[in-house]
Amino acid sequence: MVRATVGGMDHHGGRPRAERARQLADVLRQQITDGGFRGGALPDERVLGTRFAASRNAVRQALSLLRQEGLITRRRGVGTSVVLPKYGHGLDRLTGLAEELTGRGTVTNEVRVAEEVPVLPAAIAARLEVPAGAGGVRVERLRRLDGLPLSLDTSYLTADIGRTVLTGDLAARDVFGLIEEAAGVRLGRAEVTVHAVGADPDTAGLLGIGAGAAVFALERLTRLADGRPVDVESVRVRADRMTLRATLYRDGPRATACPRPPPVRPRRG
Amino acid sequence: MVRATVGGMDHHGGRPRAERARQLADVLRQQITDGGFRGGALPDERVLGTRFAASRNAVRQALSLLRQEGLITRRRGVGTSVVLPKYGHGLDRLTGLAEELTGRGTVTNEVRVAEEVPVLPAAIAARLEVPAGAGGVRVERLRRLDGLPLSLDTSYLTADIGRTVLTGDLAARDVFGLIEEAAGVRLGRAEVTVHAVGADPDTAGLLGIGAGAAVFALERLTRLADGRPVDVESVRVRADRMTLRATLYRDGPRATACPRPPPVRPRRG
Repeated sequence: MVRATVGGMDHHGGRPRAERARQLADVLRQQITDGGFRGGALPDERVLGTRFAASRNAVRQALSLLRQEGLITRRRGVGTSVVLPKYGHGLDRLTGLAEELTGRGTVTNEVRVAEEVPVLPAAIAARLEVPAGAGGVRVERLRRLDGLPLSLDTSYLTADIGRTVLTGDLAARDVFGLIEEAAGVRLGRAEVTVHAVGADPDTAGLLGIGAGAAVFALERLTRLADGRPVDVESVRVRADRMTLRATLYRDGPRATACPRPPPVRPRRG
Repeated sequence: MVRATVGGMDHHGGRPRAERARQLADVLRQQITDGGFRGGALPDERVLGTRFAASRNAVRQALSLLRQEGLITRRRGVGTSVVLPKYGHGLDRLTGLAEELTGRGTVTNEVRVAEEVPVLPAAIAARLEVPAGAGGVRVERLRRLDGLPLSLDTSYLTADIGRTVLTGDLAARDVFGLIEEAAGVRLGRAEVTVHAVGADPDTAGLLGIGAGAAVFALERLTRLADGRPVDVESVRVRADRMTLRATLYRDGPRATACPRPPPVRPRRG
């Protein structure tokens, strides 16, 4: 169904309120993510209505959606304010969380599990390209930014690297740095799969959110510079505190920012 | 709290069942995403328990989580099967949905809105770098893969490009291709922000999922090759049908796959 055709002028009135509310919520969410409201206070409903040419009811419904997402609070007499900054995690470079959030707060880790595993689960062993039945290391950490839960990270590491990682400062440091020290080489790359799921009650309790609230569930397989996989992670990230960001290029992943080849030197003679 | 220390052997018994269930669900989700169960049937609980060294109760709880996510169905006497394939959408190149899913099914679009907008919302005009008060074009489409809802996409386009896009075959084609034809040049890049949110009732109804189910909410600002922004999109994607995938490099976004510079030619003479 084409509700309005070319030249249709029903921009304000013709669409259902739910649709206008959703779109207004989208714009506000992006502004919140971009740090657009200095001091964290949103303008009042009337101002928002004027700015976005939306009815008071549509504005209210949009704010209600953002409140349900945990992005804003609304208090009578105080107004509407941003609960917490929403951090962008770049998907254009392989970084650990603490590394990524440098300068934006202090990342601390509650080490829930740090142990050798006599036999890795078969699917994990396959991902790590070690023989079925091989042992390894498991690390689970609840990660906080400035004291507030941000993510729950579970890593399975190959035995050789993992044993050394277990001796490192897991409460303060990214696993990536510890792996690089243990291996004596830089990491190479990681393949990441991002899911969005409703938080199971266990995860929700640990992250301090309601059961069923949307979270990112990332699977990340990280390899050393020589291509060998050493770390397969399952990470749950509070989606009310973190977004993922990427810049995508039309002509392939790495076509635009390569160093230019040197100019062709005219032949002598 | 470190529940198990180095060398701890309580891999099977010592952890709460919810934790083991969550981790098993993570492994199975990844296998489903990777197309790991041919024909769509999962092994029975006993086999899964043996394979993952998990108790029957942990297996049941893991399967229950995946059923809540809409990934599997369980029927007495029939067993457990994958509801739908979960498609990976690459975050390493700027592609439209139909382009991305080439060969995996037929993408069709229900054009819900396709109209000129006399005045773009102020925040949209700012994103598109056009003057406040400028007009533009809005397109909203419900996108289906093989007849089943996959995403709800809303685009605001600049007036010059948008008017030509409105004359194109919006029911069958990606907006990206229509923009390139309208502009006469290739797209350059897009900045993408990915949120995970619970679906509002309006979106949930359109996408055929339960209200509150986790969905991806993407904001994507797409630019022509010369850098000019022409399309700002808000996309909601069913998270039970789609994952996002990326390969991240430790040493920066584009360090590894650049063409090698030509070998230095020895100077003559």
